[in-house]
Amino acid sequence: MVSAKMYELGTKKSTIRTIFEFGRKRAAEVGEENIFDFSLGNPNVPTPDFVRDAAVEILQTYEPSQVHGYTVAPGNPQVRETLAQSVNARFGTNFAGKNFFITAGAAAAITICFKALTESGDEFITFAPYFPEYKVFVESVGAELKVVPAQVKDWQINFDEFEKILTPKTKAVIINSPNNPSGAVYSEETIKKLAEVLTAKSKEYGHAIFIISDEPYREIAYNVTVPYVPKFYANTLVCYSYSKSFSLPGERIGYVIVPDEVEDFGKIYGAVAGAARVLTHVNAPSLWQLVIAKCAGKPSDITIYERNAKLLYNGLIDAGFECVKPQGAFYLFPKALENDDYAFCERAKKYDLLLVPGADFGCAGYFRAAYCIKTETIERSLPLFKKLAAKYGVNT
Amino acid sequence: MVSAKMYELGTKKSTIRTIFEFGRKRAAEVGEENIFDFSLGNPNVPTPDFVRDAAVEILQTYEPSQVHGYTVAPGNPQVRETLAQSVNARFGTNFAGKNFFITAGAAAAITICFKALTESGDEFITFAPYFPEYKVFVESVGAELKVVPAQVKDWQINFDEFEKILTPKTKAVIINSPNNPSGAVYSEETIKKLAEVLTAKSKEYGHAIFIISDEPYREIAYNVTVPYVPKFYANTLVCYSYSKSFSLPGERIGYVIVPDEVEDFGKIYGAVAGAARVLTHVNAPSLWQLVIAKCAGKPSDITIYERNAKLLYNGLIDAGFECVKPQGAFYLFPKALENDDYAFCERAKKYDLLLVPGADFGCAGYFRAAYCIKTETIERSLPLFKKLAAKYGVNT
Repeated sequence: MVSAKMYELGTKKSTIRTIFEFGRKRAAEVGEENIFDFSLGNPNVPTPDFVRDAAVEILQTYEPSQVHGYTVAPGNPQVRETLAQSVNARFGTNFAGKNFFITAGAAAAITICFKALTESGDEFITFAPYFPEYKVFVESVGAELKVVPAQVKDWQINFDEFEKILTPKTKAVIINSPNNPSGAVYSEETIKKLAEVLTAKSKEYGHAIFIISDEPYREIAYNVTVPYVPKFYANTLVCYSYSKSFSLPGERIGYVIVPDEVEDFGKIYGAVAGAARVLTHVNAPSLWQLVIAKCAGKPSDITIYERNAKLLYNGLIDAGFECVKPQGAFYLFPKALENDDYAFCERAKKYDLLLVPGADFGCAGYFRAAYCIKTETIERSLPLFKKLAAKYGVNT
Repeated sequence: MVSAKMYELGTKKSTIRTIFEFGRKRAAEVGEENIFDFSLGNPNVPTPDFVRDAAVEILQTYEPSQVHGYTVAPGNPQVRETLAQSVNARFGTNFAGKNFFITAGAAAAITICFKALTESGDEFITFAPYFPEYKVFVESVGAELKVVPAQVKDWQINFDEFEKILTPKTKAVIINSPNNPSGAVYSEETIKKLAEVLTAKSKEYGHAIFIISDEPYREIAYNVTVPYVPKFYANTLVCYSYSKSFSLPGERIGYVIVPDEVEDFGKIYGAVAGAARVLTHVNAPSLWQLVIAKCAGKPSDITIYERNAKLLYNGLIDAGFECVKPQGAFYLFPKALENDDYAFCERAKKYDLLLVPGADFGCAGYFRAAYCIKTETIERSLPLFKKLAAKYGVNT
């Protein structure tokens, strides 16, 4: 009666959701302050005042039809021009409004790219650990997702494994830096090497292999430069979201950039427009288009994430955990204290520490701790991590 | 290198778009006031003040994370409860929040339904004249759209033709009342007859046939009742948008209702959730979720559409056109003055009257005139329609 696949996708609860719901139930029993919920990537920095002020000003001073009327499918042309100038000023690029397609956030942006590029038999590649919805979105457009095993020592790219997985069917490579869940930022060296490999393979296979750079965490990086990928590799599509930088996850606003330098700009931008049309993602929310243009380039205060990162990282190291030092996003991805990360996270629950098994991100034996929560909650959680480690006989 | 289909869909200009762009160019030459653009269905009634006030109040008084944070996939539970109560109060239904899935407008809502319901080989049926994107959206989920020829005398349903097109492959019937482009409202008699036929055919074929009721124009009806379809047929999915009623087309906010009474609520709601997930339409824009809940049930002043409808209808009849009297939405769909509606619309352009050929809506020999424009523009256009008719030797 219905699509069995859609029913399955709509009803099978994700691990994160299950953990989160357990947390809500448990909080009702033992009190909110006794639950240490590291499960969700929901930004806890409040939306900056300048964003609210811009929205209010637009609502109060613009003609309503200018604010709420249909925009052209790729988004308000002036807004796109402003975004282009802002990106150019920051990264020394040379974009214009025509390179931008405004979308309802990064999930829409990447899915539009998948749909735009996919021809029959295509494969996409990503690197463990990775955001699990990539698989859902890639498969939903009829392509296949191949996953390169993780390079656990630093969460950079394992190029030997990567080269084994590249085939003539490879249409694009999805990267996500700063990374959910590892917290790593791909170095310039990594991006250069990636560009080198893809350039050689594109030549060998006789067709372009694209990079889809999924960048919702771009602004959340600690004392490291996040390389701007199109400067290193021409066939790059940039997918951005304001969910994290402006703490607007619910408003669904972001964009795709198709640089002039890609092989056949017209073909690719046209296909992006067609994909947005069939996914019913033309005309991203119009008030928010105007707001992001007004706020383009304004830095929001995300120092709390860095403070939390340090606090949790030091606390875990002190408790005896192994963990790569976080460079950005708002996640730590430490090694679990037993091989079975599900069992480990179950045991952590006994201490009211809610953690997500790494296997959910294609990387068993690790766990994700989202630290976009109150600093004080992290402080109070540290003795519990110590107790948990002690239970495993670590550092005692 | 890209999906040929997506490229085609993203680059082939629609007739409406081409006409609209011609109008912009021509306006630059001869002045805005000398162009009579009836091409676009963009509401010209300003967004009601109470909508703006609600948005400003929410931005200024709520916690930012309450406004802009992620909501659960189907939308804020309290908002859904409020919408249910509002619909119940108006239509005597018995919905709860769990029956609602909030979406980014009606285009997303119907496409989510198509995707949720479609199994291999499925067909959807709609009635000419119809919104042309139905075909794009239905085909994008791998189903086929069958079109029942128009009943031109009143734009109700031609049941003889309908029964010929129904087959065991029919998954659902898409209706749109008040209708774009005909301006007709399906009578209670039509809906009852439709329910009767579908009940019999569902029984005969041994599976449910759904009605997908696409209702963005529900509030725009002139002295006629728009029957509430779920009260007449259990297997109805309602797709609604605030684009027209609150003049918020750019903000993308609407919903799907899955009534308890459908065959297997859990299966269908689950599939709707899965379809929303893969179309990356979970969590509709969060500020607008709160705004529509605050404004639920408030009537907006749409008397201008009725005034415009009368003025244009009387003017066209006076000029010698044949046209069914409009009952709602903001379109007239008169008979063209020659069989070739494209040629007719080309000729109308010579008078700077911008009209859309009926063939674009699956109904050749007619044209659509969208009257959601300034009343004064319509007044000034009437002598031109007379001249155009005279050119055809009508009413002279």
